[in-house]
Amino acid sequence: MTRAKLDALLVTAEANIEYLSGFTTQFAWNTPTRPWYFLVPRRGEAIGIIPEIGISNWLATSWCKALRSWPSPRPQDEGLDLLTQAIGEVARRYGRIGVELGAESRLGMPVADLLRLRDLVRPFELVDGFGVTRALRLVKSPAEIRRIRHICQIAGDSFDALPGTLTVGDSEKDIVRRFQADLLLRGADKTPYAAIGTGPGGYDSIIMGPSDRRLAKGDILIIDTGARCGGYFCDFDRNIAIGPPSDDARRVHAALYRATSAGIKAARPGATAAKVFKAQAEVLSAAGFDAGNVGRMGHGLGKVLTEPPSIKGDDRTKLVPGMVLTIEPSASYGRGRIMAHEENIVVTETGSRLLTRRAQREMPVVAI
Amino acid sequence: MTRAKLDALLVTAEANIEYLSGFTTQFAWNTPTRPWYFLVPRRGEAIGIIPEIGISNWLATSWCKALRSWPSPRPQDEGLDLLTQAIGEVARRYGRIGVELGAESRLGMPVADLLRLRDLVRPFELVDGFGVTRALRLVKSPAEIRRIRHICQIAGDSFDALPGTLTVGDSEKDIVRRFQADLLLRGADKTPYAAIGTGPGGYDSIIMGPSDRRLAKGDILIIDTGARCGGYFCDFDRNIAIGPPSDDARRVHAALYRATSAGIKAARPGATAAKVFKAQAEVLSAAGFDAGNVGRMGHGLGKVLTEPPSIKGDDRTKLVPGMVLTIEPSASYGRGRIMAHEENIVVTETGSRLLTRRAQREMPVVAI
Repeated sequence: MTRAKLDALLVTAEANIEYLSGFTTQFAWNTPTRPWYFLVPRRGEAIGIIPEIGISNWLATSWCKALRSWPSPRPQDEGLDLLTQAIGEVARRYGRIGVELGAESRLGMPVADLLRLRDLVRPFELVDGFGVTRALRLVKSPAEIRRIRHICQIAGDSFDALPGTLTVGDSEKDIVRRFQADLLLRGADKTPYAAIGTGPGGYDSIIMGPSDRRLAKGDILIIDTGARCGGYFCDFDRNIAIGPPSDDARRVHAALYRATSAGIKAARPGATAAKVFKAQAEVLSAAGFDAGNVGRMGHGLGKVLTEPPSIKGDDRTKLVPGMVLTIEPSASYGRGRIMAHEENIVVTETGSRLLTRRAQREMPVVAI
Repeated sequence: MTRAKLDALLVTAEANIEYLSGFTTQFAWNTPTRPWYFLVPRRGEAIGIIPEIGISNWLATSWCKALRSWPSPRPQDEGLDLLTQAIGEVARRYGRIGVELGAESRLGMPVADLLRLRDLVRPFELVDGFGVTRALRLVKSPAEIRRIRHICQIAGDSFDALPGTLTVGDSEKDIVRRFQADLLLRGADKTPYAAIGTGPGGYDSIIMGPSDRRLAKGDILIIDTGARCGGYFCDFDRNIAIGPPSDDARRVHAALYRATSAGIKAARPGATAAKVFKAQAEVLSAAGFDAGNVGRMGHGLGKVLTEPPSIKGDDRTKLVPGMVLTIEPSASYGRGRIMAHEENIVVTETGSRLLTRRAQREMPVVAI
């Protein structure tokens, strides 16, 4: 914060509040009626400014015991008065308070209240605090890496069990419901993201579904899952063929497997995100495939399903040990088909280490 | 929009985009990397301005086929240029574009980009568009009511099955994982909210957990669930005693049951939200109980777990047929204990109708 010339950081979004305060709740992020604020001054004590309904929940989960609260809902003043007061007590050196304004941020309070706050706290200026939380959250601690690995292993178990549960005639909705239930029963807390694609010879989107479409012989299926445990996500996918896949599908699968290997190998301290992209893209290109429409080949992963950096030709972020990344090449083939592979890794002192169990080299085939 | 003097409405948040465009996705709302925009002019064609990755998903789910898209991620311009252009083409009468600024709104794009947009679209002014989406979403169509009733019935089945699955020694986490899996297998799409409270003679929060605490003889348990199906939520809870409950707990349960009945009866066209609150509060007060720390006794329900109005002494919203509400009295008792009841109803032409199956008059008791 000193480097960023901030006198305090004000956070309102789930990932930032949980990351900085430890406060864990399902409630706050499912209802927009009551905002929650965590104010961290450069010097002095951090303060939670929260609705009364959350006091016991906060005290049970956060290390921070300094709380101010108001009886919410109170539409005429949802904590703004308390927040203004608390900012007024911040030791002033730079006159700047960092808030969640920048790229990849989402504000956890109404914008109208933020604009009101901006006037109320003058001469403090509200500026983008994204640089600070980005820098903090970019590199994971061993405890964070263990949590991500844990949910990766749970999802890996669910993926391993998946082919045995698939029957021609199942709808995508049936398959995804069972898959999510399986994740929960194996220990996931939540299954916010479970996309599915199915189609004859391949699917045409990796972010779709579940639809009512029924699985048929000759389909290729992908499930991509962002399941969550202990406040951390996994994010990876697996492909399954319903009956023997075509040569085309086998070829693209093989190229994606090699591209994934190249991405994992390229991910090491000092390499840029761009270099990890290039390593994957070159394998696909040499095999004669165009990249999919995803816009990148992986990204950061942690308390949010997608975090910086982007594994992309123009992202110059330098990798350092502790960064958790998805390696996610995708390629288009056939008539409007796309195929994706994805693994989760952590950058280590000497290279990188898988957090997922690597997908099989050959696409699993459900015998029908 | 004409009444609100808006030339266009720009929406970015899940509930508003899905409500207005039909676009259904798990992807967009789980990753903050790529923003999604839907622009609805007062006159002329609505436009989706979306990342390229979402085109097939959008076309498969939305009625709106007018799309502009960009290759995202592109941090230097995440669609702002396209959005500025599209707003520039809006027929100008009032010079005002409504955006999600006001109470209970959450913006689905970075605030820094909104502030940039504000400068780019001058002399158009960005103003709060919450009044328009609030008015639209407050009254549900028969199709919306059917969806809410559907997920209420699914959750009711899961609640009915719950006592039979509880064993002394189960952790709250185990119980909630099984409960969520059960909801999914019965047809829920997602289980974003499943809070649990347990404790000897009662629990002390209705928005907590699941924790590692293990169920014991003499506990009372509550689960409150916001499960989702077809883009709509249920939101209700059930209490279960592990072994015979104390007289205190029986008394507060009986008072809450009667308060719920009074709330359901008071909810009719022409009544205010305040009147529905008063009907519940009077029953609790006559029985000698103080209200819990929830701050209200129910709220609107729909595409979001909590929507306006608040069932609260100072909320003068007039009920009209088609409003879906939770009736949710809570009372404090004993040493820091709280108990809540909750049902979901729809206001009809002549009164109201339950969407949930009413809880049992007597708290279910697990024999141990």
